[in-house]
Amino acid sequence: MTQSISRTYRLGEIVAKLGGELIGDPSAEILRIATLESAGPGDLCFFSHGRYRAHLRDTRASAVILAREERDATALPRILCDDPYVYYARAAQLFDSGSRPAAGIHARAVVEEDAEIPASATVGPGCHVGRGARLGERVVIDASCTIGEDASIGEDSRLGPSVTVYPRCVIGKRALIHAGVVIGADGFGMAPDSGRWIKIPQTGRAVIGDDVEIGANTTIDRGALDDTVIEDGVKLDNQIQIGHNVRIGAHTAMAGCAAVAGSTRIGRHCAIGGAARIIGHLTIADHVTISAAAVVTKSITRAGTYAGALPSAPAREWAKTVAHLRGLDRLAKRIRELEKRLPVKRKR
Amino acid sequence: MTQSISRTYRLGEIVAKLGGELIGDPSAEILRIATLESAGPGDLCFFSHGRYRAHLRDTRASAVILAREERDATALPRILCDDPYVYYARAAQLFDSGSRPAAGIHARAVVEEDAEIPASATVGPGCHVGRGARLGERVVIDASCTIGEDASIGEDSRLGPSVTVYPRCVIGKRALIHAGVVIGADGFGMAPDSGRWIKIPQTGRAVIGDDVEIGANTTIDRGALDDTVIEDGVKLDNQIQIGHNVRIGAHTAMAGCAAVAGSTRIGRHCAIGGAARIIGHLTIADHVTISAAAVVTKSITRAGTYAGALPSAPAREWAKTVAHLRGLDRLAKRIRELEKRLPVKRKR
Amino acid sequence: MTQSISRTYRLGEIVAKLGGELIGDPSAEILRIATLESAGPGDLCFFSHGRYRAHLRDTRASAVILAREERDATALPRILCDDPYVYYARAAQLFDSGSRPAAGIHARAVVEEDAEIPASATVGPGCHVGRGARLGERVVIDASCTIGEDASIGEDSRLGPSVTVYPRCVIGKRALIHAGVVIGADGFGMAPDSGRWIKIPQTGRAVIGDDVEIGANTTIDRGALDDTVIEDGVKLDNQIQIGHNVRIGAHTAMAGCAAVAGSTRIGRHCAIGGAARIIGHLTIADHVTISAAAVVTKSITRAGTYAGALPSAPAREWAKTVAHLRGLDRLAKRIRELEKRLPVKRKR
Repeated sequence: MTQSISRTYRLGEIVAKLGGELIGDPSAEILRIATLESAGPGDLCFFSHGRYRAHLRDTRASAVILAREERDATALPRILCDDPYVYYARAAQLFDSGSRPAAGIHARAVVEEDAEIPASATVGPGCHVGRGARLGERVVIDASCTIGEDASIGEDSRLGPSVTVYPRCVIGKRALIHAGVVIGADGFGMAPDSGRWIKIPQTGRAVIGDDVEIGANTTIDRGALDDTVIEDGVKLDNQIQIGHNVRIGAHTAMAGCAAVAGSTRIGRHCAIGGAARIIGHLTIADHVTISAAAVVTKSITRAGTYAGALPSAPAREWAKTVAHLRGLDRLAKRIRELEKRLPVKRKR
Repeated sequence: MTQSISRTYRLGEIVAKLGGELIGDPSAEILRIATLESAGPGDLCFFSHGRYRAHLRDTRASAVILAREERDATALPRILCDDPYVYYARAAQLFDSGSRPAAGIHARAVVEEDAEIPASATVGPGCHVGRGARLGERVVIDASCTIGEDASIGEDSRLGPSVTVYPRCVIGKRALIHAGVVIGADGFGMAPDSGRWIKIPQTGRAVIGDDVEIGANTTIDRGALDDTVIEDGVKLDNQIQIGHNVRIGAHTAMAGCAAVAGSTRIGRHCAIGGAARIIGHLTIADHVTISAAAVVTKSITRAGTYAGALPSAPAREWAKTVAHLRGLDRLAKRIRELEKRLPVKRKR
Repeated sequence: MTQSISRTYRLGEIVAKLGGELIGDPSAEILRIATLESAGPGDLCFFSHGRYRAHLRDTRASAVILAREERDATALPRILCDDPYVYYARAAQLFDSGSRPAAGIHARAVVEEDAEIPASATVGPGCHVGRGARLGERVVIDASCTIGEDASIGEDSRLGPSVTVYPRCVIGKRALIHAGVVIGADGFGMAPDSGRWIKIPQTGRAVIGDDVEIGANTTIDRGALDDTVIEDGVKLDNQIQIGHNVRIGAHTAMAGCAAVAGSTRIGRHCAIGGAARIIGHLTIADHVTISAAAVVTKSITRAGTYAGALPSAPAREWAKTVAHLRGLDRLAKRIRELEKRLPVKRKR
């Protein structure tokens, strides 16, 4: 009920476009994608995880996407495919063709001289586009954004409301940047001098590749001298902090509230969990997975999964653990003492 | 000195409105609420925690709110009540009747056709209200906010500056939403496909109940298919991140920088500490308290207090603890070895 | 290539302005500051850390700043000084004299009556300056900022785009405030009353001293009754959260994503690491260093370095550590049992 219906597809049309094996009437009309639990007639669902098997049994959906080996898991009309989650993503994109606002610069936007804005681009009300800034074809900038001098944004990119792109920063093609993002603010560079902090001008840029998505209120600082670089296909969730001169390799994804301190390099195809913290001046290899809330304090040279969070526990139990942890030094001494007192010779 | 004086009350008037037992002259005029430490003549203070007893002794306030059992804790004019902190909250509300800006749509706001804005509402300069958006009676929207198409905001709600409400999202009545909040940006939904990420359109909504407060720069993502839901009376502090399809139960409070990953359900009347992290797809029962900075990795089925942070320590001591922690495996082996070598039989 | 060249300096001019010993031709022209690694002809570099010695050997820079004891570390033209990093900061400031936008109030800004804006100040498009707000000489406010009623901003301060300063808040001189910062939103004050939360009006202010820098999307809440205070020379990175009634002592620096809960007082000249969390109602002494990601749960009365993060590890290894940690209680019992069974008398 909650989602506007742009257009409908018949099951047969979907399979013709996206592949897979259809079991059922190809002329059945699909109005919408939905979850198994909330679906009703006209809805197409997906089943990609065993824990939802009860929902599969009870769903009122008109059709289901599932893995080939789940062929008999339902009697509903169904599409069998290799990866139901990917199929769902593609199907959802079909239904979400997306409304594109009309091209043009809103009368209430302010565009400085020498800014290049093609006729196909959309600039919303309250935006400010600085001198020398360049927007690509079909770029859409929502209300109240600020695009600094000489910044550039590649074709088909979309910026949500109240995004700031500081001067000279570069955003590639097909970027999707959500509200409140700040790209290219000064990195945190200060030299201590007799108890005061001397500001180090941050004169590098933030350079964002193609096909990058950046979540709401995320901040990506400009470099001190060289650039901060986010490579192609990187996906950043909300409230992520990327320090100056960080480089994030292509197709790496980072979940919400993750943070990367200055000059760290993260490899390609990494997956960084929510609220993970990576300190500065490290190098993280390609294909590294960091679990949620881990604190990475050393470079990681090999692909693999790394963790670092302690699971919470009932407060009383936790208090004991903390006390024991603090007492580990004494505990270790007591073991040494016991070992000394044991007459038997030990080989370590 | 720092706070504008809207109007004054006599002590007797306050007690007539809010209850409690007055000891002292009811005609004494109160100008303002203040802390015991900074109060002067004309100020009403509250005493709710023993640690401030020295301040109570030294205060220059004209009157004090305190618990009935503290009747003799001061010789000043005083109001005795059951809960001085709640009484203070109520009294402070009396004095902070609050300035309401004049109703009307600012000439520098942009309101699209078909948006419904009652005459009693206030829309500040630089705002953009999309097609089909609906504001309730007496809604106040401060400068530079963006209200998306078909979004709705219930009566008496107030939005600070630069808030974004994405299309179709819903905010209930009497909400208080501070600057920079982003409601309804896309959830972080991506399907991995041969080393690339395929965007999953986020077509659910963010639905916020009545009497909700949301702190500055907090982000609440819209749902993937179903909605993200914040129930009535929830209070969120600053820089909180709420992932897609999360549900937060009524009257739960979350302190600053807390984060909840996708599809987790938090119960009613919970208290989530600052910077606590709750991973995705969990269920947290009603009346659960999570301590600051805890990382919750499993569902919690029982009311109670849960903790998970390690207190910091002097760096050298901490380094030892870390070393011991890493050596726990070896330590455990040494204990096993000792146990083997001890001739006495043990019952576990 | 990435940085606009404002003006150039000869090596001799730089040394005349900033001191140090020049070895090489004083007439050599310097276009820019660069890193050793990326430098080319016309670039001045600095060498301040041994780990970059290979870069020093290979650099194509025209001149290098280094410590006096590194006099022979390169054959390039060079400036010897006491602290190459500070020298670099000063030199970079020379080159980054900075473009100041033209003074004046943009036609698309909205300035309410009784606001005081000197002719030397700049107010960008889309800004809203409330009644009674006061800007100092040469203040620059970028696009889409909101300055609340009776707020004041000291001379030579600069605000990036989309900054919010709530009513009555005070910012000192020469502040540098980056995009998306929110100063003076309500603190998180609620009294629990029969399962509901009663709002405590936040009537204090946020008061920011002189020479303060505040990073993008950082939030500083106003006080409940008294003020939240950020003293002179404090430097805050991005996405920091400062709760109500916090006081941060002069010349303290805090790295990204740090958070300080309500009523905590941090001393002067402290250095707070990224993502460090300091709970409420604590007092931290002067000259305290807190490591990244530490959680501070008790007051710190002595200068020194404090830590608290656990370094991440390969997931399998980490799982073992977590299991052992949970088993510490049992491990301690087993040691006690061993000790009981050992016939030898022990002195603790």
